[in-house]
Formats: sequence, structure tokens, C-alpha cells
Amino acid sequence: MSNIHAERIAALRAVMERNGWDAVTISGSDPHSSEYPAPRWQQVRWLSGFTGEAGDLVITMDHAGLWTDSRYFIQALTQLEETGIELHKTRMPDSVSIPQWLSDKARTVALDGLCWNVDAVKEIEEALGEGGLVVDLPDMLEELWEGRPQIPMTPITTLDVETFGGTPRSEKISWLRKWMLLQGVDRVLLTSLDEIAWLLNVRGNDIEYNPLVISYLLVSQDSVRWFVRKGVHDDPDTQDSFSELEMDGVIVDDYDAVFFALSDFSDEQSPVTLFADPSTLNHHIHEYIRDSYPADRIVFGTSPVILEKSVRIPSEIEHMRQTFIDDGVAMECFIHWLETEVASGREVDEWEASEKLTWFRSQIPGYRGNSFENISAYGPGGALPHYLTPKEGSALIRPHGLYLVDSGGQYLTGTTDITRTIPLGPCTDLEKEDYTLVLKGMIDLSMAIFPRGTAGCQIDAIARMPLWKARRNFGHGTGHGVGYYLCVHEGPQSIRYQYNPQPLLPGMVTSNEPALYREGMHGVRHENLILCREEGISEFGDWIGFETLTLCHFDTSAVIPELLGPEALGWLNEYNERVYRTLAPLLPTEVAAWLRTKTLPV
Amino acid sequence: MSNIHAERIAALRAVMERNGWDAVTISGSDPHSSEYPAPRWQQVRWLSGFTGEAGDLVITMDHAGLWTDSRYFIQALTQLEETGIELHKTRMPDSVSIPQWLSDKARTVALDGLCWNVDAVKEIEEALGEGGLVVDLPDMLEELWEGRPQIPMTPITTLDVETFGGTPRSEKISWLRKWMLLQGVDRVLLTSLDEIAWLLNVRGNDIEYNPLVISYLLVSQDSVRWFVRKGVHDDPDTQDSFSELEMDGVIVDDYDAVFFALSDFSDEQSPVTLFADPSTLNHHIHEYIRDSYPADRIVFGTSPVILEKSVRIPSEIEHMRQTFIDDGVAMECFIHWLETEVASGREVDEWEASEKLTWFRSQIPGYRGNSFENISAYGPGGALPHYLTPKEGSALIRPHGLYLVDSGGQYLTGTTDITRTIPLGPCTDLEKEDYTLVLKGMIDLSMAIFPRGTAGCQIDAIARMPLWKARRNFGHGTGHGVGYYLCVHEGPQSIRYQYNPQPLLPGMVTSNEPALYREGMHGVRHENLILCREEGISEFGDWIGFETLTLCHFDTSAVIPELLGPEALGWLNEYNERVYRTLAPLLPTEVAAWLRTKTLPV
Repeated sequence: MSNIHAERIAALRAVMERNGWDAVTISGSDPHSSEYPAPRWQQVRWLSGFTGEAGDLVITMDHAGLWTDSRYFIQALTQLEETGIELHKTRMPDSVSIPQWLSDKARTVALDGLCWNVDAVKEIEEALGEGGLVVDLPDMLEELWEGRPQIPMTPITTLDVETFGGTPRSEKISWLRKWMLLQGVDRVLLTSLDEIAWLLNVRGNDIEYNPLVISYLLVSQDSVRWFVRKGVHDDPDTQDSFSELEMDGVIVDDYDAVFFALSDFSDEQSPVTLFADPSTLNHHIHEYIRDSYPADRIVFGTSPVILEKSVRIPSEIEHMRQTFIDDGVAMECFIHWLETEVASGREVDEWEASEKLTWFRSQIPGYRGNSFENISAYGPGGALPHYLTPKEGSALIRPHGLYLVDSGGQYLTGTTDITRTIPLGPCTDLEKEDYTLVLKGMIDLSMAIFPRGTAGCQIDAIARMPLWKARRNFGHGTGHGVGYYLCVHEGPQSIRYQYNPQPLLPGMVTSNEPALYREGMHGVRHENLILCREEGISEFGDWIGFETLTLCHFDTSAVIPELLGPEALGWLNEYNERVYRTLAPLLPTEVAAWLRTKTLPV
Repeated sequence: MSNIHAERIAALRAVMERNGWDAVTISGSDPHSSEYPAPRWQQVRWLSGFTGEAGDLVITMDHAGLWTDSRYFIQALTQLEETGIELHKTRMPDSVSIPQWLSDKARTVALDGLCWNVDAVKEIEEALGEGGLVVDLPDMLEELWEGRPQIPMTPITTLDVETFGGTPRSEKISWLRKWMLLQGVDRVLLTSLDEIAWLLNVRGNDIEYNPLVISYLLVSQDSVRWFVRKGVHDDPDTQDSFSELEMDGVIVDDYDAVFFALSDFSDEQSPVTLFADPSTLNHHIHEYIRDSYPADRIVFGTSPVILEKSVRIPSEIEHMRQTFIDDGVAMECFIHWLETEVASGREVDEWEASEKLTWFRSQIPGYRGNSFENISAYGPGGALPHYLTPKEGSALIRPHGLYLVDSGGQYLTGTTDITRTIPLGPCTDLEKEDYTLVLKGMIDLSMAIFPRGTAGCQIDAIARMPLWKARRNFGHGTGHGVGYYLCVHEGPQSIRYQYNPQPLLPGMVTSNEPALYREGMHGVRHENLILCREEGISEFGDWIGFETLTLCHFDTSAVIPELLGPEALGWLNEYNERVYRTLAPLLPTEVAAWLRTKTLPV
């Protein structure tokens, strides 16, 4: 143990010894249980050097461990070298969770209660059992972490729903208040950043790729209080947004004022009940309000905003369709550029391709940035589902084999997420087989029709069966929900092998992305976004299916027609024709001519 | 209210009034939670006249209701006319269960605790809440029911596992004892009749179509006690079976002695724990033993026998394959006979066809009866999934349209269950479409391959998708487990739209029976039994698929080849050829020649 991370762990252990703590747990998340935390809360990265997007640390006097899942095993092993930190694998059949692991190794566990949610701390407390103690220390690393970043503070904008679609915030607030009346709760505390952004129709840029504002929201029948870093913003647009919100009756208050606001309700004369979602409410707030709200006045449940947010209304759908046309134009310009460059013999590497794609997207009106970090991967790189394209020394893209590009944009009128696997010349039989079978799965799911009430886990096998029949499979979900100018991953729906009873509802947008990965060789992933929609009523029930939103051709040169079968081939030809007809009028002449040749029927 | 059932209900109400009961609930099951009860426990039928296989009654002073599911709605409405009993629909979105319904209508509920299991009574008790009372009255209808049948007592046989396959009972008992040690329980009380029959390798005929013996079984590390109507059997084979069991260390005792045996263990010096499955343990026994076993010494859980019983061992599979050949010969002889008769212009009705089919099966060595009541349905009758073929006045089978026959046999070496829908001449386009789409679903499921660990509910959509795409569906499960010379319905696996996390394991036998029903017109159901088996290992995992056990051709005259698609058509041609090659050598010459023409490739 000789590097900077080992030193930081040693410093933390000195604090632990002084205080008599058996263990410290460090969360990879922030006070809002965000999937991706801002730099201030990248505490796992600071302490361990591990840069994966999911991972928690446990430090005891004689052990340091990182808990993360299979997406990051290889990365973790490399990044943890010489830190003395051991890798603990999660989501494996024999995985031992952090609470289980702690149960016989610690009595007193210290943690930053801001960064652990109520559900997670409850699990730890239960594992420690009687005599165990969880010590809550907000910002516990602050002292050790010199130059720790501040809470982010990017400009805030309100959305113009009259022009760009969506429901006015006043209607959303009324809906929530009606829900509160039905549930018999007096106050709702929203803690999840995308729920707050959706309800208030506000966007910021506090977290890379996620247009969110670090804040809390407290709603009652007579007030809406938004707790955000109000005082420190001097950006004029932000000030205008605050004014607009205040005109709509939203009280804009300072971020930390949430604590005072919550304790305000402790008046015994008129007891109120508070609703919060324990999967995103942080432990520190819960500890803080326990005195003001006895157990029977805190109602825990799944936030109703999650489901409501997942269903697009018609005006949003209309705008989204245009957004996917714009995004398709950028994609086709990019693929045309790449194929032309590579065919001409110029040396293009993965990083340059990624930058070029971002440039094409940035030309679209309403573009607000990418929705996640581009994955630009040639050959073996494509076999890593979460490949990080290195800025320096990325692979050269050659005129043969498969190039995989997974990318998306944030626009005022929607969020996109698309993967294309592009054959850049001759492909091996195995590459063609994998390409075709994955495509068949994606198309079979696109064509699926099912009764209202069906959940994604009930149709996941439709997308996998072509691969399964060839004894092939992929280790991630087939589809995740996608926000509307919000997070590229959202719930509650999914299309996964794992059980998730949430039915797919008309208006939900989900990805459709089966894949296949062969380590050291190549990866194939075909991804469209699909809109769940009604497909008529018959004497046998109410029918639901998908409209494919994404518009970008699938290359047919790697397709083995017999393997695809006539039905899927029909879908492919029709889709490519639709892409050509929709996009060609918007493309430069030579790109349109090229797209004509790429979309001829097989 | 003027008929005999109304009179019986009136007599019951008099008893209720005398005792001060607000409600009486009558179960459609027996003391062993059997799916089909023997006549003694057909109390619902006696009281209401309803003959469906699933239904419970609730009688209050001013209301009488029958709770049953959609399979029996039409039948119930007809049979309950003039009884004053109202139909309560179960398993519908707005269904109100018996406990829910009772919650605000009764304080004191009387029931025959023998015929309600612990889980069911717990639900009623919880619904009644504090101040509610469940009165347990074993055989409560005995007084009112003149000539009530006795507990059945049919001859008992032990299975010759050395000759006919299966695991010796000594090994099964050892397995259970090992499980008990691992679980830390001292006694296991088995209450489910098919679990007992399986563990002891005994069969009887106490319940029609189900080769079971009414009994209880109590297993400890040093004794196995079987509680059965020992004293009253004078059949010599039964006496031999008892002797064989006793030589294997099984103590054969009288049925009612189970109560004494259970209370025997109340010795405070050496407290023992008792394991039972509350979904089949009856409430009366539980009440009886509550004194002997305090709550913490009764361990409730799912019986381990259910899963163990569902997996066939190689020697059973070998015998089953022969059984399906024999059953296929009977089916082909029957279909040949039917087609010849109908084509010749002779008037054959559904009942005659059913009897003829039973006759063909009865010629098979090892035949022990049918596994359920034949469903022999022409035209509109086929649209009722549980059509009861009437002995008098059943429909004539005409030389056009669809005839549906669902039947099965009990053999020493297995249980069969097969449905064929037979086009007897010209069919309408709709009949052909339905025939083809259902067949495509059945074939797609037959061809499915999936990773080890996959449950039936994850692949149910594979069988339904061809119908779903045409906005058609069927209201029952796609597949149920099938016993080995045991019940034709068994768990724990199923292939259903509804959630059931039990993975399909190699060795499990399940039906594959998608269907389509058009009221007043026709029904289509194609059913094979499929054996779950290993399908190899690849770098992507461990693969599972199906072997089709049932051998009987599918008629191709109603198939629309374009609708079936090339892959399913290939399967169909190959299957029909396999049926011909396997069965032809065993068929009479003219049947073999006929089968050749029926199995020519499309």
C-alpha cells in the first residue's frame, strides 16, 4: 500500500481509531440517491480511485473492500491495484451484501447519513442487530478531503410547456395534492432529483448528462417549498426562473432550509403526517425529523411521481417524434462521415469518431448536451457493455469488422439513446450471425403485441429467444425507461429477465437493446427507443404494442436473411424505408444518396 | 326457492339460528385440500346442486353465495337457478374474496375445520378481526345429510419400482429425513394425498381419476406412520401391500389415529418440532394439536415433497416414453375410427366418441383408468374449456368443422394428457386461422430454449404471441405439471401468464396447451406433454429446453402454411414424420396406411 488512496484510507482509519468505530461505509451516491453523483459526492472515487458508476466502500481496521457489480469487475481490479482494497462482487449467486458482511465484523458503523438512504441504513441496522450502532456523520470525509468540491450550482431554466409540450407545473401540483388527499397525508417530501425536476418543470445541469438541480421539494395543500442553493445563484436566467416559479406560488428557499422547514411541523396541536420514499430519502434527514414526526406520522411508500412521470402526454409525444427525426439526421450524417473516412483509408480512432458524433448532435436546435458519455468502440472494445472510450490512444477504426456506437442527446423536447453496430467492411461468419440474431430479437420485440397489464419481464424472452436458441445470451436488461429531457435511465418500468411487476403503459418510453458480447472479439448491440401505445380492442381484450421512435437505418450488409426469417426481414425493410423517406429530405444531397443505397430492401 | 337445495339451506339456517352463527362457510375440498374431493366431501354439490370442480359456499341468514372462477360461470348460473344462491365471481379484477365479504357481515363463522386448510382459516380470522370467532365443527353437515357417503376405501397397491421405474420408498424416506435434519425439524406431517402416494409408492383409487389413498403420513427419524382406513380393508392385494410396507418399516395405522399420534408428542421433557404445510394441513388438526405443540414448535412451510416429486428420474422417463407410444396408438386408432365413421355418414355423437376413445385406451397393458373425464366436443361445445359431454343428447359429430378431444390415461408407468382438435371436413377461414395460430404458439413453445433458472411465466408469452399479434387470447394457463401415475395437475411449476417463480427443471413434465375459444362457434386447443431437459452448455450459460413426449399427429388440412411460417412448419413436418415412424409398426395395417396420408409433409 503506497499510493495516495492507501494514504487516505490510513488517515480515515486514524479517525476511526480515535472514535472507536469498527467500520466506516462510504456510499457511491449523493443525498438524493442519484444514479450518478456530482463530483462533491464522488467519495468512493476520492478514497479508492475506482471510477465506476456504481460502488460502495467498507473500511475496517484490517480490511478495505469495494462492492460493485459485474459491469465493473475488470475496471475495479485494475483501478484497485496497490490500494489494498479488495473487490467484493455484487449481484452474483454467492454475493455477500455489505450489511451481511458487516454483521459479524462490526458493532459500531459510521457513515455519512446524507449519502445513504433510509432503506439501506435499515438493512445495516438489522444486520448489526441488538447492541449494534450506526453513527451518522454528515460530510464525514470533509476534514480529510482537501479541496472537496462544493455542491454544484449550474444555471436553472424553467420549461416552456406551451411551446414545447408537457403539463404545466400547476396541474402537476394539483394532481399530487389530490393524491395526498386520497392517501390521507399532509406533506410530501420529494428527494429524488428527477422527480423534483419533472414536477416543477425545471432543469439544471448539476450532474453531468443529467439535467437536474440539487434540491428538495416539500408539498402541502397550501404551500410548495423548493429548497435549492438560491442565495448563491447570480445567473440572470436562473433569477428569471425563480421569479416564474414564485409567480406560480412556489416558495424558493435555501437548500439547507429543508431541515428547519421539516421541524416546523412539530406543533403538537395539529399533528401532520409526512410522506417520503425511503429508497431516496437520506438517513440524515430521517434522523433529523424523527423527533418532529413520531413513527406513526411518517408514511413511507413508493413516490407516486415515479409512475406519473413515466407516462408521456400527447403533446410530449408529438415533440418527441420531431426530436427523433433531428437525432436521426445527426446519426446518419455521422455514419456517412465515418464510413467515407474509413473507406478512404484515413486513420480515424474511436475518440475522434465520438467527438464528431457529438459535433453533429450539437448542430440540432434545442440540443442541451449528451444524455450520457458516448460509447465509441471498435472490435474488442464493443465487447465491454460500458466501454469508456479513452481520449488518448483509443483504437483505430478499420475497414472490416464491427464498430459499436451507443450515444444520446438531451434536447428541450426529449432525451434520446441509440446504439448502432456498424459493419465497416468484410465481417466474419460469427460476426454476421451475432449481428443477425441480436437484430432478430430487437425486431421481434418491436413487433410484439400483448394484453393491457403485461409487464416487461413477461415479454423479455421475446427479444432473447433468437439468441437463446443459438445458446447465446447477454447479461444486462433488454430495456430501461427513458425520461423526457430528463435521465436516460428511469423507472418504474423495464424489460428485463428479472421480475418487475410494473405493467407497460401506453405513453411509456423504453429502450429495446438486446446485445451479444464476445470478449476480445466484438460486441453487437442494436438499440431503439420504443413508445408503448394502444393497439386496439378485440373481443379478447385490450391490446398494447410499440411504436419505434428512433430513426436511423440498420446496415443490411451483415444480415443473414435466412437467419432473420421472412417476418423480421419484412419489418427491417419497412423500417429502413421509413427512415429513408423521413430523413432524406433533411439530409445533405450526398448523404441522402448514400442513405438510399443503405436502405434498399434485402 | 322451492327445490331440494333450497330446503337443505333452510335446514342449515335453522341450525345456524339455534347456535347463534352469523355465517357458515362450506368448502369444495376435502380434509387433504384435494383438487377433486371424493363424494363424501362433495358438500357444495349436496347443498347447492353446483357440480363444478372448484367452488365454496357461504350461507348467512339472508344470503347464500357460491364463489367460483370463470371456468364455471355459465354452469353455475344454470345450476343455481331456483336455489336462491347467488354467484360470486373469483379471480376477476373486482372480485371480493370470501374473507373480505364476511368481514363486515359476520362476527361468528362456523365451518367444518376438516375441509378448510390453515391458510384459508387464517385469512377468515384476520378478516373478522378482533371479536370475530371461527367455530370449528368437523363433519358439520353429517346430521342434515341423510345417506352421506363414507370415507372411500378402494384397493391399495404398491408400485413395483424395480420393474417399472422410480425411486424405492426407502430412498425417498431417507431423503426426507435428511431434509428434516437440515431444517431442524423432528416430525413431518404430510397431508396432501399425492405427496403421500409418491413418498410411499402406493396407489389407490379413492378419488375418481386420481390414484390416491385417503390418508395422513407422519415421519420422524425413527418411524414412519401411515394413517389409512386399515381395519376395514379385506382385499387381499391391499393386505399384501400393507405387509410390504410394514416390511419396509412403515407402521400402518388407522386413519383417525393420526390425532392420537400427534398428541403423543406433547411430552414436555423432550419437546419436538412438527413441520406441516399450511396450504394442505386442515384447520381441525391444527386446532387439535395446538395444545401439544405451542406455536414455536409448529413449523409451517411449503412441503419439500412437492418439488422433489415434480422431477422425473431417468428410469421413470424411460418408461414414460413407452407409455406415450402406447397412448399414441390408442389416440391414432380412435381418430382413424372417428374419421372413418363420420365420413361414412354414420351418426356418431360426442358421448359415443368419448366411450370409444376410453375403450381404445383400456386395451393398453398397464391401463388403470382415465386421468380425468374425457372432453369430447364438436363445434360450439369445444368453446367451453371444461365442456362436460352429456351421456344423453350430446351433439352429433358432422363431416365439417372442428371436433376437440381432451383426454388422458392413468398407467402404471405414467399419466397422459392430450388434446387434439380434428378438422372433420371443410373448415371456415376463421377456424383455419385459429387452428393455425394456436398451433404456431404450441410449436414455438416446443422449440424454446432458455437459460437454467427460467420460470414458466417468463416463457408463457412465447406460446401466446402468435395469438396476441392477431389480438386473440385464451383465459387459462399454457401449461400445468403432470404427475407420474398420479394427478394430472401437479405443481410446483407451471407455464402461465401469472407470476410463479419456480424454475423449470430438467425432469419436470408439463403440458403445452395454448387454445382459442369462440362462444357459440368453435374451440381450438392443441396439447402435448413436454419433458424439460438439458440442452447443452455454452460460454453463455447452461441451456434448458423441451422434449415432446406426446405422440399423435396434428392434422395439416386446417393449417395455413404462410401463417405458420417456415420454422414452425419445419417442426410440424418433422413431428408428424416422427409420429408416423414410431407408431406405424404398432398400428393395424389400414390405420398405418391412413396415418401415412395424414402425416405427409406440408
